[in-house]
Amino acid sequence: MRAPGGERITVAFDALGAEGGPDVVIPGVRAAAEDGIAVRVFGSPSALEPLGSIDGVEVVACEEVIGNDEEPVRAVRGRPGASIVRAAADVAAGDSHALASPGSTGATMTAALFALKRIRSVQRPALAVQLPVPGRESPVLMLDVGANTEARASHLVQFAHLGSAFSESVLGVERPRVALLSIGEEAKKGTQLVVDAHEALAGSSAIDFAGNVEGRDLLEVEGEVDVVVTDGFTGNVVLKTIEGTAGAVGSAVGRAARSNPMAMAGGLLLKPALGSLRSSIDPDGTGGAILLGLRGVAVVGHGSSGPEGVANQIRVAARAVAERAVERTEELIKRSGVGRAEQRRSAAAPTVADETAVDAGSGGEPEAGS
Amino acid sequence: MRAPGGERITVAFDALGAEGGPDVVIPGVRAAAEDGIAVRVFGSPSALEPLGSIDGVEVVACEEVIGNDEEPVRAVRGRPGASIVRAAADVAAGDSHALASPGSTGATMTAALFALKRIRSVQRPALAVQLPVPGRESPVLMLDVGANTEARASHLVQFAHLGSAFSESVLGVERPRVALLSIGEEAKKGTQLVVDAHEALAGSSAIDFAGNVEGRDLLEVEGEVDVVVTDGFTGNVVLKTIEGTAGAVGSAVGRAARSNPMAMAGGLLLKPALGSLRSSIDPDGTGGAILLGLRGVAVVGHGSSGPEGVANQIRVAARAVAERAVERTEELIKRSGVGRAEQRRSAAAPTVADETAVDAGSGGEPEAGS
Repeated sequence: MRAPGGERITVAFDALGAEGGPDVVIPGVRAAAEDGIAVRVFGSPSALEPLGSIDGVEVVACEEVIGNDEEPVRAVRGRPGASIVRAAADVAAGDSHALASPGSTGATMTAALFALKRIRSVQRPALAVQLPVPGRESPVLMLDVGANTEARASHLVQFAHLGSAFSESVLGVERPRVALLSIGEEAKKGTQLVVDAHEALAGSSAIDFAGNVEGRDLLEVEGEVDVVVTDGFTGNVVLKTIEGTAGAVGSAVGRAARSNPMAMAGGLLLKPALGSLRSSIDPDGTGGAILLGLRGVAVVGHGSSGPEGVANQIRVAARAVAERAVERTEELIKRSGVGRAEQRRSAAAPTVADETAVDAGSGGEPEAGS
Repeated sequence: MRAPGGERITVAFDALGAEGGPDVVIPGVRAAAEDGIAVRVFGSPSALEPLGSIDGVEVVACEEVIGNDEEPVRAVRGRPGASIVRAAADVAAGDSHALASPGSTGATMTAALFALKRIRSVQRPALAVQLPVPGRESPVLMLDVGANTEARASHLVQFAHLGSAFSESVLGVERPRVALLSIGEEAKKGTQLVVDAHEALAGSSAIDFAGNVEGRDLLEVEGEVDVVVTDGFTGNVVLKTIEGTAGAVGSAVGRAARSNPMAMAGGLLLKPALGSLRSSIDPDGTGGAILLGLRGVAVVGHGSSGPEGVANQIRVAARAVAERAVERTEELIKRSGVGRAEQRRSAAAPTVADETAVDAGSGGEPEAGS
């Protein structure tokens, strides 16, 4: 895969973050490399030895990892040798084009924010996931799923623009339809936050605003919405609720299929067809979440990714580079004028420091893509 | 079914609120009456004519209904002849013991609040649903699912007590385990609202606080939690997300079973076993939501209830009367001391008027039980 400049795209991958270890990383990176993506793998050279012989893959020796239980801001600041910090720095230095990590979500977001910085006039980066909708061709992009625990209406408006730009540039959706997650379709339904954001979005000409959607519309096959915007707390709870519900229903189908011999025979006959359903709702299929609003590409994979999940994280990162996602987002944000009022206000009062722009400390651990 | 005083329990039922009309109301009320519950049915005597001959059932002539699209506070105030207003007044006057309605959720909540009033020191009533967990014996009680769009930490603490009291008295759970919905298990995860509520609940001895749960834990068969507390916005979004996800996965299984002849044979063999799954996640099975915190019993059914849903709404209302749910909730709230600080503060500043205690106007239309 080629960068807009014509050179091969290189992704910095934090191998130490993968819970599955080398058994998952080696085949995953190999699959991505077979697609023509160069990968700089931050991890243990001895454990990742088989990767050394693959064209375009380079293992950068690194043994230090930031765990899920560490306070992200302190850990990223205090441990410059940690794999995620070094991988992010690699992108900032221009040695890689994009960052992908299945490690601690908080640490990945923090390291990416510190190293890559925000796009001018973007107040808060947002974490976006592609919700796989069984039976629907294109996934629904939902953001924020946990980069910010609390949000202001102006943040939600920016999330709408960030999501729209990503959907158009990377997912190939022409003029994406953007909706707000609420508890009713009417403009006045929801919290004050949602009502204010609705009003602002309804008056925006830069994006195609579809109004409010409800929780039950998210996985609607016939849904006409491409991007769903919400605050990071609600988005994270919803993402995990979808995962939990799909899992519970799936297990119940499994139990039903074991309940008696006739059902068991039925289950066996049905199994191959259900397999494709399982893969269509598997978070590995979409490669995890992407942190939008930065001056670089950062993909936040699921810690429990399998090989396919690892490969897809790297593929998503490379595709975002190839499609100039960051540049196109910058253009859209600039054109839309979102953030200008905030910027004027910021001239008087100091802006939120980048250190607190991601709620890495008190915020959620979104376990993106889950 | 007998009230604590020994007399037969009478439920006021708003028949005009049922979308399915008499076809649903007649068999539903009949089934409830067969369980020994007396029902005063507010609706059209000619349409409900077959109910006239059933022992214990009385049709109260009423032709006026408040629709889903009406602003609840204005409608309830301005239309004393509407079925839900009259049914609620019937309970307040002592002619019925409890209210059940499958009509407009906003109008039902508002009419119930105006007629029945709040329990002393309860700041906000909350709407609670029983989440049917496939494979688990007892449902999980989640509240608030939409009575209040915004909440303060003190409200969440009260919701915990209201939910605990209902779970113990009506659902028969001994010392219910109560959790907060958040984005991580740690006490500091989540919005400031959740963090503050966590701290207050952790220090409470009146309930058994289990800490935070995440979205994926809600339908966990092995879950050790009986009551999940959240604000009305999040609860409503989550409830509808569960419904939408279960529906999407269910449809996908159906599509898989039609995808080829082998799968079709499998689907047919599996169908009987899947039927019990469907009924176990059917919102009709739990009879809808219940408005907690009032000095009377009010059950808010699903508008699209079938006959079983109607019968279960009435059964839940009657059971709450038989089990003295309101009295036991009052005792628990009093014993816990929750709300005392608020009451002292209220002596200086006027309390929130009952008229605004349910966000019926700008708030959600929770379509309870869905």
